[in-house]
Amino acid sequence: MHEVHVGANLLAENDHAAAHNRQHFIEHGVYVLNLMSAPGAGKTTLLERTVSALKETYRLAVIEGDVQTNADAERIERHGVPAVQINTGSACHLDARMIAKQLEGDVIDLHALDLLIVENVGNLVCPAEFDLGEHDKVMLLSVTEGDDKPKKYPLMFHVVKAMVLNKIDLLPHVDFDVDKAEGAARALNLDLEIFRVSARSGEGLEGWLGWIESRIERVKGQ
Amino acid sequence: MHEVHVGANLLAENDHAAAHNRQHFIEHGVYVLNLMSAPGAGKTTLLERTVSALKETYRLAVIEGDVQTNADAERIERHGVPAVQINTGSACHLDARMIAKQLEGDVIDLHALDLLIVENVGNLVCPAEFDLGEHDKVMLLSVTEGDDKPKKYPLMFHVVKAMVLNKIDLLPHVDFDVDKAEGAARALNLDLEIFRVSARSGEGLEGWLGWIESRIERVKGQ
Repeated sequence: MHEVHVGANLLAENDHAAAHNRQHFIEHGVYVLNLMSAPGAGKTTLLERTVSALKETYRLAVIEGDVQTNADAERIERHGVPAVQINTGSACHLDARMIAKQLEGDVIDLHALDLLIVENVGNLVCPAEFDLGEHDKVMLLSVTEGDDKPKKYPLMFHVVKAMVLNKIDLLPHVDFDVDKAEGAARALNLDLEIFRVSARSGEGLEGWLGWIESRIERVKGQ
Repeated sequence: MHEVHVGANLLAENDHAAAHNRQHFIEHGVYVLNLMSAPGAGKTTLLERTVSALKETYRLAVIEGDVQTNADAERIERHGVPAVQINTGSACHLDARMIAKQLEGDVIDLHALDLLIVENVGNLVCPAEFDLGEHDKVMLLSVTEGDDKPKKYPLMFHVVKAMVLNKIDLLPHVDFDVDKAEGAARALNLDLEIFRVSARSGEGLEGWLGWIESRIERVKGQ
């Protein structure tokens, strides 16, 4: 009664690994967030602000996914926060087994963490499909990318808990209709949390940081 | 830079069809709910209660997914509510193209609807993986199935907006720890809504019905 095809098997394999990861995260009480966006939307800059603000209160680490280079992990480590780089080579997204391998390594020690942030490969398509075992998916949309992105990448906007609208300091200089973009995103995702920020200037970050803290506390309280 | 493999293609095809469906639902202002559970958890009985309670206030229809037989669609039609049956044959889940075909048929007319409920094939694995374009996934867990189900089927509990805990009238007669099951489900899903009901006796249904109404109104308000 069960249809067997390669696609379902690949998915099943990833889901199996993701389920293992998720069980580890739950057992250790570590809140895990999977951050996704198009290339250049400002994920690493937002992460630098985030780890810098939270590192005195919480024990945290970052997994950086990129097709190549270690540049992003180095940017995080400069803040004194443990970071490990995954180079995906030909793959345009992280998958659950890549994360599982890091959990067996030296840098990411779940016993010593409250928060683990995974920065996915810059891509608005495939990362939305691959469960890593995280608690929440979050996407970053920069206003320089255009307000049509929810319509063009509906799955991404549908699967996330929160959208961070970045580079709002550039709004006077671009044609980006905030209400249109946010309305289209909320039509795809009835409970979407939205934070308007400038990771560069720091504007609006308190809402974003407060939300992450509330998620960490919820996991710790379980 | 983009890894090509059959699984991703299969997923991409389904996501493409799901995105089309979702766009149609949004354009027509129809709230769409995908109801999933193990076989025999009481999906159709819950749906009979649901359509019976909501049909005077809202325009609604049901798509029934089953490997074979039209029995479930006939049960819904007896309440004077349009229902169409999809027989999936060898497939253990509905996919987005099966739904898309129904949107081109005579029974499901999005212009004439506020609410469309899709009852998926009874299965706790694959239905969680296939986006149909719905607004919300909901899962039904009956207390006779055991309180270990969140641990055994973590993806299902992770992807849903709400869990309906059914057959609570049988709690005195089974070994089912409600707090354990709900705690395990919430560990997998920080924002999970939970409704404890007996679809047979009607107990607890007001919370579930109120939630659906609030979702319909949110979609209409957009």
